[in-house]
Amino acid sequence: MSLVIALDAMGGDNAPGIVIDGAAKALRQSPGLRFLLFGDEGRIAPLLERHPALAAAGELRHTGKAVAPDAKPSQALRQGRDSSMRLAIDAVKTGEAAAAVSAGNTGALMAMAKFVLKTLPGIDRPAIAALLPTRRAPVVMLDLGANVDCGPEHLFQFAVMGEVYARAVLDIAKPRVGILNVGTEEVKGDSVVRSAAALLRDSGLAIDYYGFVEGGDVSEGRVHVVVTDGFTGNVALKITEGTARLFSAALRQAFRSSWRARLGYLLARPALNRMRQRFDPRLYNGAMFLGLNGVVVKSHGGTDAVGFAAAISAAIQLVEQGTNERIIAEMNAAGTGRDSPAGRKVAAS
Amino acid sequence: MSLVIALDAMGGDNAPGIVIDGAAKALRQSPGLRFLLFGDEGRIAPLLERHPALAAAGELRHTGKAVAPDAKPSQALRQGRDSSMRLAIDAVKTGEAAAAVSAGNTGALMAMAKFVLKTLPGIDRPAIAALLPTRRAPVVMLDLGANVDCGPEHLFQFAVMGEVYARAVLDIAKPRVGILNVGTEEVKGDSVVRSAAALLRDSGLAIDYYGFVEGGDVSEGRVHVVVTDGFTGNVALKITEGTARLFSAALRQAFRSSWRARLGYLLARPALNRMRQRFDPRLYNGAMFLGLNGVVVKSHGGTDAVGFAAAISAAIQLVEQGTNERIIAEMNAAGTGRDSPAGRKVAAS
Repeated sequence: MSLVIALDAMGGDNAPGIVIDGAAKALRQSPGLRFLLFGDEGRIAPLLERHPALAAAGELRHTGKAVAPDAKPSQALRQGRDSSMRLAIDAVKTGEAAAAVSAGNTGALMAMAKFVLKTLPGIDRPAIAALLPTRRAPVVMLDLGANVDCGPEHLFQFAVMGEVYARAVLDIAKPRVGILNVGTEEVKGDSVVRSAAALLRDSGLAIDYYGFVEGGDVSEGRVHVVVTDGFTGNVALKITEGTARLFSAALRQAFRSSWRARLGYLLARPALNRMRQRFDPRLYNGAMFLGLNGVVVKSHGGTDAVGFAAAISAAIQLVEQGTNERIIAEMNAAGTGRDSPAGRKVAAS
Repeated sequence: MSLVIALDAMGGDNAPGIVIDGAAKALRQSPGLRFLLFGDEGRIAPLLERHPALAAAGELRHTGKAVAPDAKPSQALRQGRDSSMRLAIDAVKTGEAAAAVSAGNTGALMAMAKFVLKTLPGIDRPAIAALLPTRRAPVVMLDLGANVDCGPEHLFQFAVMGEVYARAVLDIAKPRVGILNVGTEEVKGDSVVRSAAALLRDSGLAIDYYGFVEGGDVSEGRVHVVVTDGFTGNVALKITEGTARLFSAALRQAFRSSWRARLGYLLARPALNRMRQRFDPRLYNGAMFLGLNGVVVKSHGGTDAVGFAAAISAAIQLVEQGTNERIIAEMNAAGTGRDSPAGRKVAAS
């Protein structure tokens, strides 16, 4: 049976162009795929003419409504019932599609996905997870902004979800999990991170809990999963991206500053291009909404077709690896399923 | 009258060598300076022989005790009364020195400085502030780790102190102040940042409050002062440093990956060296403990003489600019001095 992916064709700065081009690219990589394309027929149909294979593998479902990039989540929930974003999520709910991908408004996507799909048993709140480059293998970091206020039980749940996710997408048998803190000693930080560490140590789960990690440990690749609240995680992600941009801009400036530097750049260009590819943000595109009854992936709003195709690949991987089933199994093993007394105990601690 | 700086000669990975070399360097830059050098005479005296000018401008006060790099703050407070670190702070308290500089244990230095010097009127908690490079002028960020749990009134106080500090060291007449958050809209974030924003807007102070900034705005230099709690600030600082290290390592690797790339590096080297100087972490060395009745500067533990000299320069600037007097004046103007009813109201809100 071929995998069906629902696409919000109208989400993102350059939609629907990059969505259609990205889907066509993903189809070339995974020829068995099928797509449900939600959006404005008048704008999408002409784009499909350039991609006959996608036109054959995709079904276009028209809606004239789209969620505005600056819409508040509550507003999108109330007024966006016929929007391309909502219809893509609905298709996951009904089982028509195995996953939904959108490059639209993050807050609206999260609110709709939570409302329509609900959370997995044992998970109080979904989290946003993504991969970041490090000196070694990429690292999974979560939460990146879905939950600004977190209790210990939420960080614990993020750790379980992040570990499962790392096993699925990084192909690591036993990922090391760390909790982000201001120091590595057990006494450091606030009561939330210290209690979360205790929950992880005492969970009885076969999770390789490494301990606390500091901001500088993330890019060292000291652990495979970095757990944090959505406030710190969001700042950390955007600081990382900002620092990378600052460095890249300074490097470009340096190479343009003299004829010697220009010539040096020309000689080093192949090596520098390989380096650029390693850090290409498009290859890291696709933030997962972990903890939902269904797979939803958020693409960066400003990405291009290459980035959008990467987000589709990430969604496929989550589905094929049975990530959600694995999360449910882990939460059951931790005795924190919603119906277990231990679950209530942990959630109340 | 010449300025006297008290130095913890035993603090830091490469003490007392880098402290003495750094002090000699600072003395060449500011010939009027005088130093009180606290530490092990047997190790310091031989080093001074290489620096006759410093030996003449410095007074060596022997103590065999030093705070261990891994000592807990409480332990350092109890057992470190005769330590080189404590004696340097005591010299500020007694008025013998105008400022103290140490590259030792941060937690111990903060605990001792708070205990000995106490906070300024209107300031509940001191904060750690430092400069970070951006696309434009460097930005002041605080708190970088002194306070992991902060209320709105603390962020408000950090904003006032950061603004005064930016005026003093960046020579900007009216620095723009932003509060770090997960989005720029007023509704974003948790109640702490939203209440702090309200305190700043309603303070009646002549502070140019810009609003919320995101992680990516820091390196863009969108504001001159970035205010955050010590948890997020510490993670943000270390993530920035880690990302810069990751990028530098990848660049070095790229330039070594082929003979073409090596040759390209040789040609571009002068331009790349200028770029490196712009981001040289040693020039950003020296974290200020703002909000204390006295100037205390923390040098990075792993720095060298160039970095330690920069930390001394930062201390001099704080003293010469009358930073503490300006903070007191601002807090009085905000009606949040300890003795004012308004101050108690704000602190309790």
